[in-house]
Amino acid sequence: MVKKMRSVSIIAAGLSKFGENWDESYRQMIAKAALEALSSNVVEGKEIEAIFGGTMASGRFIGQEHIGALIADQLGLNPIASTRVEAACASGGVALRQGFTAVASGMYDIVAVGGAEKMTDVSTEQAAFALGGAGDQETELFHGATFPALYALLAQKHMEKFGTTEEMMASCAVKNHHNAMHNPIAQFHKEFSIADVMNSGYIASPLKLLDCSPITDGAAVLILCETSKAKKLSDQAIEIVGSGQASDSLALTGRKSLTQLDATMLAAKHALAQAKATPKDIDVAEVHDCFTIAEILAIEDLGFFKKGSGGTASLGGETEINGQVAVNPSGGLKACGHPVGATGVKQAAEIFYQLNGIAGKRQRKDAEIGLTHNVGGSGATAVVHVYKKA
Amino acid sequence: MVKKMRSVSIIAAGLSKFGENWDESYRQMIAKAALEALSSNVVEGKEIEAIFGGTMASGRFIGQEHIGALIADQLGLNPIASTRVEAACASGGVALRQGFTAVASGMYDIVAVGGAEKMTDVSTEQAAFALGGAGDQETELFHGATFPALYALLAQKHMEKFGTTEEMMASCAVKNHHNAMHNPIAQFHKEFSIADVMNSGYIASPLKLLDCSPITDGAAVLILCETSKAKKLSDQAIEIVGSGQASDSLALTGRKSLTQLDATMLAAKHALAQAKATPKDIDVAEVHDCFTIAEILAIEDLGFFKKGSGGTASLGGETEINGQVAVNPSGGLKACGHPVGATGVKQAAEIFYQLNGIAGKRQRKDAEIGLTHNVGGSGATAVVHVYKKA
Repeated sequence: MVKKMRSVSIIAAGLSKFGENWDESYRQMIAKAALEALSSNVVEGKEIEAIFGGTMASGRFIGQEHIGALIADQLGLNPIASTRVEAACASGGVALRQGFTAVASGMYDIVAVGGAEKMTDVSTEQAAFALGGAGDQETELFHGATFPALYALLAQKHMEKFGTTEEMMASCAVKNHHNAMHNPIAQFHKEFSIADVMNSGYIASPLKLLDCSPITDGAAVLILCETSKAKKLSDQAIEIVGSGQASDSLALTGRKSLTQLDATMLAAKHALAQAKATPKDIDVAEVHDCFTIAEILAIEDLGFFKKGSGGTASLGGETEINGQVAVNPSGGLKACGHPVGATGVKQAAEIFYQLNGIAGKRQRKDAEIGLTHNVGGSGATAVVHVYKKA
Repeated sequence: MVKKMRSVSIIAAGLSKFGENWDESYRQMIAKAALEALSSNVVEGKEIEAIFGGTMASGRFIGQEHIGALIADQLGLNPIASTRVEAACASGGVALRQGFTAVASGMYDIVAVGGAEKMTDVSTEQAAFALGGAGDQETELFHGATFPALYALLAQKHMEKFGTTEEMMASCAVKNHHNAMHNPIAQFHKEFSIADVMNSGYIASPLKLLDCSPITDGAAVLILCETSKAKKLSDQAIEIVGSGQASDSLALTGRKSLTQLDATMLAAKHALAQAKATPKDIDVAEVHDCFTIAEILAIEDLGFFKKGSGGTASLGGETEINGQVAVNPSGGLKACGHPVGATGVKQAAEIFYQLNGIAGKRQRKDAEIGLTHNVGGSGATAVVHVYKKA
């Protein structure tokens, strides 16, 4: 589909701490992430021409809509255009795509992309209802199907069809908690064994507590720039070489298959084609592991492993940092945390660090091509981006 | 700022009925508006490559986020990318700008832009709190400043500084209710006199009931297409010749002035410069009259009338359909209704009708250049578009 668009690169990234940030407001987290992105001194705030921010449910979490204006205001960046996008837990990835499009179009040379969510100011019950709005309110949430239940259905079907086991799913959590040990902003710095995961309580069978990503506060910011200018400004420019987004039915009942997310497959197909890359070319990927089964679905649907073999691959260590493909070196949603609107932007920040070789002890050796995969709801939206050193 | 972007035109528009649509859900209104847009047979649904939808507070109004996916799902347009944007009451205008950017970039040739809000499924108190999230929750809403109070402050200041009277404000409502008599989708088909407005009860002094726009359900859809292709497909193509968006402080307390909206002025400056037009060139404009004082601010800030003279101009009939500039021929937010996320898209639909000469009894004679002006909150976001026959 893409015709005559300009090339776009990430030139800076910043993250707040991810976790239960009782002492920080939505505004403060955004400011912290933005200041970190600007601290690289690649650009000044006044050079930023527009803002695209992803937030899922600020109306229900903090009583505040109109988040685009809030971000510009908080960062002292008025009067530039500032736009919030929302696609449930894919809000951040979709915001990145809007920023990418705006620079690719020629409308702007330099834009900021942000993602944030403040989730701990409401009760867990209120959070579950707010998050349930990512699925179909009328046919799922209203009848009690919150997200662990929806992903449990996907897990049951995968187990039945491919023989995937609870231990295989647990291995995703174990790896992601291990990776997060080396990520200073991660919500959890605690290792777990497969036995620990297996012994945690059931939330929605077969998913147990340690198969689930947590409720998290956090913010992430990227600065995007047209690539020829980016290379002049920074030796850390990471080019976005592919961007794909696809939709599927909001409710699980409308899906053609429950053992794959078609939106992931299509978004990946578009992004990889645009990048002139294949799944085998990807060295490092941040994928949407809101539940462990979601990571298994992702690594299959993205083409890293054959359909049905994701569980075996994970248990066999093939997604570890020095495995066939490093999956979720940040710790993923599971252990780095999942502030829903921020996640897609944080994923891109991690790939920025990885492809620049500045990811410390969680660095994938010689990482050249990276991928991010962000899912909304139970797969009704998927966004995939592919990156390489500019 | 704009470099080498492609030209973009509107080729079709559709609207649901605006009003208290007890018998229609959010999904049904979107479907109705989209089917009307497609009924012109200019394009088929399967030719649409992406969707951009504006909704302000669906989480709080109908318990549903992830609206992009919902729209694609409801219209049977999966698996194309579908993205929700939110900028309070400017959500529709900002969605239009995202669609414009996506086509201008070369990413897509044909996209749908939608706006919708279902506001009557909650109590008026709940609606006031949801809408209050368009202002600053921490420093305004939390302390009781809902939107009539915020705009009342702007009105007080305008009256004090420029001698604007309550009768002048009332004249905006009278004109807009008159225009709405000829708009079949309008919420109200009832004429009022200035005395009627003056005798309606105070909501927040000096604003009375008939100075305020209503709570409304409604949806609006546009189909955008790259202009050279648009002209082949349709003889009704209306080109978007300018697009501007700007931000200002979320709270009134941060504004430089309370007698103008700087974001409107800047967005208009950008859009008019891009269009190579001046305010005098505009024949017909849909402006953001959430309260009557907002229409007076708009016609001044957009440059149609000198600052401070908007009230006199309105009372003198200069904004009537055959006045100096036709303002809100649709009936505006006041009388056509204000389903917040739909408003910005409906405004563009009205200009599409006007510039094609198909607006019936509310037609501005020989309208050649049109403008839309959509505001979020008390002016923290403003979006302006300029249009002419392609």
